[in-house]
Amino acid sequence: MNLLLAGSFGPEERLAWTRALQQVLPTHRLVADEPALQALGREHIDVALVANPAPGSLQGLPRLRLIQSLWAGVDRLLADPTLPAGVPVARMVDPAMNAAMAETALWAVLSLHRGFFDYQGQQRQALWQQRPQRRADEVAVTVLGFGQMGRAVAQRLAAQGYRVAAWRREPAPADTGAAPPAVPAGVDLQAGLAALPALLARTEVLVNLLPLTASTRGLLDARCFAALPRGAAVVNLARGAHLVEADLLAALASGQLRHAVLDVFQTEPLPAEHAFWQHGHITVLPHAAALTDERSAAAVVADNLARLVCGEPLRHLVQAQRGY
Amino acid sequence: MNLLLAGSFGPEERLAWTRALQQVLPTHRLVADEPALQALGREHIDVALVANPAPGSLQGLPRLRLIQSLWAGVDRLLADPTLPAGVPVARMVDPAMNAAMAETALWAVLSLHRGFFDYQGQQRQALWQQRPQRRADEVAVTVLGFGQMGRAVAQRLAAQGYRVAAWRREPAPADTGAAPPAVPAGVDLQAGLAALPALLARTEVLVNLLPLTASTRGLLDARCFAALPRGAAVVNLARGAHLVEADLLAALASGQLRHAVLDVFQTEPLPAEHAFWQHGHITVLPHAAALTDERSAAAVVADNLARLVCGEPLRHLVQAQRGY
Repeated sequence: MNLLLAGSFGPEERLAWTRALQQVLPTHRLVADEPALQALGREHIDVALVANPAPGSLQGLPRLRLIQSLWAGVDRLLADPTLPAGVPVARMVDPAMNAAMAETALWAVLSLHRGFFDYQGQQRQALWQQRPQRRADEVAVTVLGFGQMGRAVAQRLAAQGYRVAAWRREPAPADTGAAPPAVPAGVDLQAGLAALPALLARTEVLVNLLPLTASTRGLLDARCFAALPRGAAVVNLARGAHLVEADLLAALASGQLRHAVLDVFQTEPLPAEHAFWQHGHITVLPHAAALTDERSAAAVVADNLARLVCGEPLRHLVQAQRGY
Repeated sequence: MNLLLAGSFGPEERLAWTRALQQVLPTHRLVADEPALQALGREHIDVALVANPAPGSLQGLPRLRLIQSLWAGVDRLLADPTLPAGVPVARMVDPAMNAAMAETALWAVLSLHRGFFDYQGQQRQALWQQRPQRRADEVAVTVLGFGQMGRAVAQRLAAQGYRVAAWRREPAPADTGAAPPAVPAGVDLQAGLAALPALLARTEVLVNLLPLTASTRGLLDARCFAALPRGAAVVNLARGAHLVEADLLAALASGQLRHAVLDVFQTEPLPAEHAFWQHGHITVLPHAAALTDERSAAAVVADNLARLVCGEPLRHLVQAQRGY
């Protein structure tokens, strides 16, 4: 098959993807840049492998049978009105990326639980002062979202002894008719909007890993923060549009929230003049909580292409009506 | 029995210890302050429960049968020349403290592995820049010390997928004639000074949890840093005297080391004018990596006192000749 690699890559990143994909797809032709695409002809492309492709770049591909995202989040891809209708879209579910996300979430929770952000502030003032030490099983963490990443994060946190709840919006997984995924040991799984207020009321650290859809946009707002106990913390590792930025600043100013760890923002890169950069109670990461690992992601692509060739069911297909 | 609580406690801390000890030792008399000691008479004290007691405070206790430390490290206690000779000294081995140490070590390793200290520096400059992401199994961590804490730390790190080696100075555990402790899955245990250079040469993050003795003092020096690969990091969670501070500053300045996380110092509290406070590649913690948890530590004390009453072997006894 002829595979088009389309995305907003830096030169090194494009090279890394090209190498990783060619290694696991030796029998396919990989078209990795515009000259190669013109030489082959757009009409011969079978599959597009995409990471934030320029709007319109998937038009005029009459033979296209699959759009395979190299990114986990497909909200921007699906928002492109020129996306060819009727072509299946698959998300990236990369085990190495799930592990990276679990590491970032664990680091954020450890930092909040053990006061390491506070000690960092104390260091700047040369202030030597121990803070009370609590056990992990005294700290209630809630993970919003119970997809591949939410599950990996909840499992990792529960294994460290935290009191972990997970929440998903749909009472039952909307994916397929398949059996629901197992709930990791020690994780209290809750579902549905009705369950959320009571859950938030007993949450000390709120970790967001929801997909961005019309129903989750702006979920982290003043109402959500007010439902948390005073002094709770928020960790947003999903999408900037989940968070109402002005509401976060107000909740930090009032002391309702004590700290936020943010990896994603309404505008990325976060503008240099943005209030978050110099805020003493906000930790800013440059959308680096979990990068796709080219090597393991290429193997996931290869698996889905083999399924396409053999006519077997594709994995991780997006359902347009739910938005992920 | 009559128990003397002696240490450099703050008022709240003294109250917390008193409560926790009284709860698990209802049949013993706890003497928690000087007036109570004078009322009872020093000659009636059977056991001293100590946390950094003032030098000389354990003299003149003719009936003393056990000095039970409430701290894990006993180097300062043993250095007191007025310590009554012939009275057994027991260290504190508190499971909650081991867990806290494992949390701190994991936080430091995650921060170094995933670049979170670097992102923190970038935040101050409003710099949006992702760093390369590596998998945990590509990161080699060596834990110096394989006592209760070293073992807990090595186990926790190995469970996160890091490539973990542990090192102990003695080829065999010097404790007792008992069977050697199990080596956690995934941990490569090395022993003896001869094995150290080769081990350091393949270590990216060096975590120190050795006891402070004549043979480990100053182990983290220029020679040790030179044996590490260029750009390695050091995490000192044991004692300040393990580290030659000037050598650390030189190794950071030359780029031989990229970062250090320090919880312990030659002088504590770390003086306000000390160079470490404002160093961009040193993270300072105020000796807070693992505090004793009064509740679980009190249970450990109760167990040893029950053994003393029944004439059973005491646990975690210090061996004066090895120094811990």
